[in-house]
Amino acid sequence: MVFTTSAEAPEKVPEGSNSVLVKNLYLSCDPYMRGRMSKPLHKSYTDAFTPGSVITGYGVCKVVDSGHPNFKAGDLVWGMTGWEEFSLISMPDALIKIKYTDVPLSYYTGILGMPGLTAYAGFHEICSPKKGETVYVSAASGAVGQLVGQFAKLMGCYVVGSAGTKEKVDLLKNKFGFDDAFNYKEEPDLTAALKRCFPNGIDIYFENVGGAMLDAVLLNMRDHGRIAVCGLISQYNLTKQDSVHNLFCLITKRIRMQGFIEPDFKHQYPQFLELVIQYIRDGKLIYVEDVVEGIEKAPSALIGLFSGRNVGKQVVNVAHE
Amino acid sequence: MVFTTSAEAPEKVPEGSNSVLVKNLYLSCDPYMRGRMSKPLHKSYTDAFTPGSVITGYGVCKVVDSGHPNFKAGDLVWGMTGWEEFSLISMPDALIKIKYTDVPLSYYTGILGMPGLTAYAGFHEICSPKKGETVYVSAASGAVGQLVGQFAKLMGCYVVGSAGTKEKVDLLKNKFGFDDAFNYKEEPDLTAALKRCFPNGIDIYFENVGGAMLDAVLLNMRDHGRIAVCGLISQYNLTKQDSVHNLFCLITKRIRMQGFIEPDFKHQYPQFLELVIQYIRDGKLIYVEDVVEGIEKAPSALIGLFSGRNVGKQVVNVAHE
Repeated sequence: MVFTTSAEAPEKVPEGSNSVLVKNLYLSCDPYMRGRMSKPLHKSYTDAFTPGSVITGYGVCKVVDSGHPNFKAGDLVWGMTGWEEFSLISMPDALIKIKYTDVPLSYYTGILGMPGLTAYAGFHEICSPKKGETVYVSAASGAVGQLVGQFAKLMGCYVVGSAGTKEKVDLLKNKFGFDDAFNYKEEPDLTAALKRCFPNGIDIYFENVGGAMLDAVLLNMRDHGRIAVCGLISQYNLTKQDSVHNLFCLITKRIRMQGFIEPDFKHQYPQFLELVIQYIRDGKLIYVEDVVEGIEKAPSALIGLFSGRNVGKQVVNVAHE
Repeated sequence: MVFTTSAEAPEKVPEGSNSVLVKNLYLSCDPYMRGRMSKPLHKSYTDAFTPGSVITGYGVCKVVDSGHPNFKAGDLVWGMTGWEEFSLISMPDALIKIKYTDVPLSYYTGILGMPGLTAYAGFHEICSPKKGETVYVSAASGAVGQLVGQFAKLMGCYVVGSAGTKEKVDLLKNKFGFDDAFNYKEEPDLTAALKRCFPNGIDIYFENVGGAMLDAVLLNMRDHGRIAVCGLISQYNLTKQDSVHNLFCLITKRIRMQGFIEPDFKHQYPQFLELVIQYIRDGKLIYVEDVVEGIEKAPSALIGLFSGRNVGKQVVNVAHE
């Protein structure tokens, strides 16, 4: 059901339904959504969007009315909702009630939501990190990258990130505590840039971009290195994917390269939440968001992800409580 | 030291040396040797050959004279030797004394040597196989592939192999017991060929070839699949490596892709030997070799690997005991 203005929205859920009617407060712009706009090459873990139907994505919402026993009017929740002012959510079981409100509510689209668990599980479960190892994060100021770098620092790793503007590189070095950072757009030779940052090689690469960066990383990996493949944002708008040429390094360096998605780690969310909320309160983790105001700005905010226009996690503020 | 004819060879090791003088019986032609003929892109696990020096590789040898306490004249050994009739081995500690001689001695270049342990460790340690899973092996009639398929069958997997001639495909189906096999050179669409062989997808891919085959496999992998990267023989004679385009499947299907090399598993050799010698005696494992006679045939036999001229493990018989 699509409600484009609040005037059209119902005030109640239909009689006898167990749906939940919510007012959308924050909508999340995430790179995986691009995949839902293409005919999938193969069965994917998310369905494609249906042209003409409302776009769905993660969001933070306030319950207006509920036919479901777990939710009542006034509850704050996060989960899958529609890109609209009000949404009638017909399968509300996947909604998560917001427990802590001493942090910005928008954090539940980022550090305390899907990108946060992606960074946490991807780094700890897929990268097998050890204290003192060298970690490289691409798209490092993004929703996931900024957290991976901070998790790696908390573990005692040496962390370098890359991003596409001076402002982002400054954030990495001066706000998120990366040991070093570089602007990949100013490097004529990515292989040389990585060699300069990691003279003894990379133990762990947290892959967010793909393409030429991956080829350069492969040449700079250390023996028994790990590559967690989280995203390939440089590739999502290409009709033919860039080629990767240096996979032979997987053999000579005995590299493990592993893809993952956050839904496989949902069971870890409760422990993740308790850990991260405390880190936030203690100032051990910080989070930078790029919030635009108004649902009319949502499409351009989403598109901006693919040219790196956002600085930090891209959020759309649709309404205030 | 290079001895091109037996007449030039010494009969004794130099006084006071702990070297071992051996007569070479079998020399092994292995794809990894191609890498030793190029200037490495990066530090590799094997040194490059030195132009003008004798080529080295795995072989089966008989000790003629020994200055090392572990070896005496008449011992049969296998390990790194020279492509020549006699070799003076100055670091003999890595030689392995041959314990069982009720099988062809040439087997110590193959099923009981480096390729055997490669197949065993690669399949069992890297692929994490489970009974009933689907396994695809490329270059499946080669030194390693034929064993991977048989190990997978022994574990209760469904196994399909590919090779480049009708003769090899027949071997896979009728001699090695693969469930199915196809000639990749006769398939206009590798993705479709794999879809036909694995309508429900591939759990495990044992990668020996690279390039276009890997791209086709990625599209046919199942969720949580594993790819063991053992070799990329289609790539070794290219100045620019073929491109791989479908790495996005690593994410959507949560695939683990891992390179490995046999030297990391040397400690497993004793248990591997006991297991495999018994399998051979019981007829549970068979091995097909392509043996050429005479050291003068060694260079063309090695070159033939890269066009798939060999049928089974390529061995050069230099001398009889």
